[in-house]
Amino acid sequence: MTRLHRLLSAGLVVAALTQPAVAQTPNRAELEKAVAARHGVTVKALQDWIALPTIAAERRNVAEGAAYMVRLAQEAGFVNAKVVPTDGLPGVFGTIDVGAPVTMGVYFMYDVKQFDPAEWTSPPLEARIVDRPGEGKAIVGRGSVNQKGPEMAFLAALHALKAAGRRPPVNIVLVAEGEEEIASPNFHQIVQNPEVMAALKRTAGVFIPFNAQDRDGSAGVNLGAKGAVELQLIVGGETSNRYPKSDTHSSSHARIANPAWRLVKALDTLVADDGYTAAVDGWMENVKPLTARQRELVEQLSKRGSEADAKKASGGVGRWLGDDDYRSSIERLISRPTINIQGLVSGYSGPGGKTVLPSRAEAKIDLRLVPDQTRDEVVAKLRAHLAKHGFDDVKVNVSGGYGPNQTDENAPLIRAQKAVLDRWKIPYVINPRLAGSWPGVVFTGPPLGLPAGQIGIGRGGGAHAPDEWFLIESSDPKVAGMKEQTLLYVDLMYELAKQGRR
Amino acid sequence: MTRLHRLLSAGLVVAALTQPAVAQTPNRAELEKAVAARHGVTVKALQDWIALPTIAAERRNVAEGAAYMVRLAQEAGFVNAKVVPTDGLPGVFGTIDVGAPVTMGVYFMYDVKQFDPAEWTSPPLEARIVDRPGEGKAIVGRGSVNQKGPEMAFLAALHALKAAGRRPPVNIVLVAEGEEEIASPNFHQIVQNPEVMAALKRTAGVFIPFNAQDRDGSAGVNLGAKGAVELQLIVGGETSNRYPKSDTHSSSHARIANPAWRLVKALDTLVADDGYTAAVDGWMENVKPLTARQRELVEQLSKRGSEADAKKASGGVGRWLGDDDYRSSIERLISRPTINIQGLVSGYSGPGGKTVLPSRAEAKIDLRLVPDQTRDEVVAKLRAHLAKHGFDDVKVNVSGGYGPNQTDENAPLIRAQKAVLDRWKIPYVINPRLAGSWPGVVFTGPPLGLPAGQIGIGRGGGAHAPDEWFLIESSDPKVAGMKEQTLLYVDLMYELAKQGRR
Repeated sequence: MTRLHRLLSAGLVVAALTQPAVAQTPNRAELEKAVAARHGVTVKALQDWIALPTIAAERRNVAEGAAYMVRLAQEAGFVNAKVVPTDGLPGVFGTIDVGAPVTMGVYFMYDVKQFDPAEWTSPPLEARIVDRPGEGKAIVGRGSVNQKGPEMAFLAALHALKAAGRRPPVNIVLVAEGEEEIASPNFHQIVQNPEVMAALKRTAGVFIPFNAQDRDGSAGVNLGAKGAVELQLIVGGETSNRYPKSDTHSSSHARIANPAWRLVKALDTLVADDGYTAAVDGWMENVKPLTARQRELVEQLSKRGSEADAKKASGGVGRWLGDDDYRSSIERLISRPTINIQGLVSGYSGPGGKTVLPSRAEAKIDLRLVPDQTRDEVVAKLRAHLAKHGFDDVKVNVSGGYGPNQTDENAPLIRAQKAVLDRWKIPYVINPRLAGSWPGVVFTGPPLGLPAGQIGIGRGGGAHAPDEWFLIESSDPKVAGMKEQTLLYVDLMYELAKQGRR
Repeated sequence: MTRLHRLLSAGLVVAALTQPAVAQTPNRAELEKAVAARHGVTVKALQDWIALPTIAAERRNVAEGAAYMVRLAQEAGFVNAKVVPTDGLPGVFGTIDVGAPVTMGVYFMYDVKQFDPAEWTSPPLEARIVDRPGEGKAIVGRGSVNQKGPEMAFLAALHALKAAGRRPPVNIVLVAEGEEEIASPNFHQIVQNPEVMAALKRTAGVFIPFNAQDRDGSAGVNLGAKGAVELQLIVGGETSNRYPKSDTHSSSHARIANPAWRLVKALDTLVADDGYTAAVDGWMENVKPLTARQRELVEQLSKRGSEADAKKASGGVGRWLGDDDYRSSIERLISRPTINIQGLVSGYSGPGGKTVLPSRAEAKIDLRLVPDQTRDEVVAKLRAHLAKHGFDDVKVNVSGGYGPNQTDENAPLIRAQKAVLDRWKIPYVINPRLAGSWPGVVFTGPPLGLPAGQIGIGRGGGAHAPDEWFLIESSDPKVAGMKEQTLLYVDLMYELAKQGRR
């Protein structure tokens, strides 16, 4: 979910005063009390969870993390929760069936991003509670905001209902994966499990608990996200005997081909001379133009955010692509599919130079897709393009990815989200599409065709960085802490029950 | 000198039996005895020198290394030896003036390559003597072959003459630098020192002591070397506000330019689609074609070496550039100027992918030059090319370099070298030009116009690698140890005295 975090905090949301109001949840005061009474237990449970990091890239705590997720789900009421095997890390699936007419879907990730303790000011697995000046008390720990904190707030909502002797007003389907941080290569296998698929089919939509609030208290409602495909282009001794198998002396280039040049030549064909327009045959043919409503939302977004803040949050860039104005930059952010170079790796990388002819060159690429592009389509087009240009010695290694997702603004899940935010008097902007990505297409695409998105209040930061934090107790009345976020999920359940399935 | 080592051992030299014969050096047996008598002292002196590594890139032992070089020179008879300051690491200069009609120039480097002790099987500064099966006793230590071992053998020749109560038959000028391993950025300043320049002008040529023998005992006579220019092309937040100042989320590429793409576009213009032919305007206009004699030498080289060994020594490459046959590959190696990518560095470099938009992209480049290209010429052409193509945001950082050098086969220094090798019955090939580089142009170019090259016998290896070694006592009669190398330098002095200055 980090992809979302970064985007949401990129200055697209502006300040307004927030005042929690009485919700239309029956006997809400009782639930508020139950949430408050369990607060210490909830925070401790979050800390315990943070202490057990599952990291897919390192295959760290694989079985332990899945078993822990099962236990957390069971304790929250998903008594049938169990592990769902995949070719990679296992998923977790559970249901709460109260015989309600409406079913709510929830997506969890139980994995976290890699971390280097040396870069942290407090141990990343200790989940210490620290004072965050001007914000309140926060937990500092890997996974605290991405995504264990908000997920624990959702589980706490179920615990509060139970403590108050109530059953949830909706049935709930929980589906969790342990590979979100490596781009969910096997999540489709979890969803395609017949039992999981049948359960998801009954839902009114699926959401991931999320901290959507900005410093000024405003939140966001997201109607979709781009797809993302990660791949590496590799050329060298391992792909052709034209290149050395190990680095050799640079003077040899007089009679030996250099794979770094070959990579440069292959990359050069992928985008136009402007350095960003896709030059792969047919790349744009399934790209849908923005609708009038989407352009209207872009316009709204551009009027609320601060361009200077957005530039600052984007690595301190000075100019947008093509010297765009702010509105155009947002339109591009939302509508443009990209071919991005994440990294170039070849030969010597230390200071100055070193006289080597590299034996290998690699470009790390990510593709961002918009409706109606698909993962299979763009990968096939890329391969065909390289073949057509004769790059038979350039290997394409697709390491993960999925297509874009899009949800209708009038779906009951979105209506419920907006109704609750309105009731809480939390200002929000509607983002027609996140430039970041999450594997929501598994829900929104065929065969399920469900609404999907991120829902929550509260704050956190540093998702893929050191000192990741999650706000436990907010000192700012405009911003929610963990208790308020929990209560919002209670309200959301009642509101979704009211909105119905369609 | 590593550049040479690698090239010389790349299969261009073949086997033949070697039998040291009586040299035409007066009362040579007495000198042979003197060399043998001092052998233990010489080896110990080499070990002590290895214990004090000067590393320019790390500015390690700068003052200490220069002072040590001064002391070694003084002890060997350069009583006036002293430090010559430069903008970088200092040089060392000394003379032995015996009033002889002929003066011999010697070039030393007192610096060594960086090293990581963890990669060595014995501590790199301990200079342990180990058994090298089938070869004999060797010193393992950083700088042992590159270049302290052969240099110490030359100093030992002077000590042997002194021990035998003789003065050298030639005057000697010693000039040393401490920045060879960073491509000699300031060596011209040492040579341009008026006192050094005046002394060098009187020499019949300048050589660097060197281990030229292959496993089969054969040696090489080198008539020149390509020039080398090291530079980095850099683009990113530090060169233009189009790019972020720090890495940002990869989804931002929808509205933010990626410096890695820009680098790819700039690099792409430098070479043709074949991935090696220079495409910079006027790049080839000063490239002199090989002479008939040079082509004849290429032909000889191609008949002696094993193509399979050459491919093995070149990182195990399977095919030469353009699917050349072996002779053509050698012709390219000797005649083709190159634009090589040593390294590509941008963004994420770990396993798999990471969703970043890099703030910086760098290509590490080396240019190899042949006569009559010059460093200033190619750098100016590269800058003009990038400017013409609008790459004003691509910074060119030239970190070092020098032009090519070429020495006449009939120069007295080369005649003396060949005469001594013939007398020792050491087979040799004549290499018209090394594909590797050394800053000999400072001697061969204007205003000095001197012959220059590498001279020596003996063996060693691993110049820029772990477990660098230098043969002290050879168990193979075809291959020289340190004593024989020392004696060859004695013979060389007498032979040069005989050959005269022109």
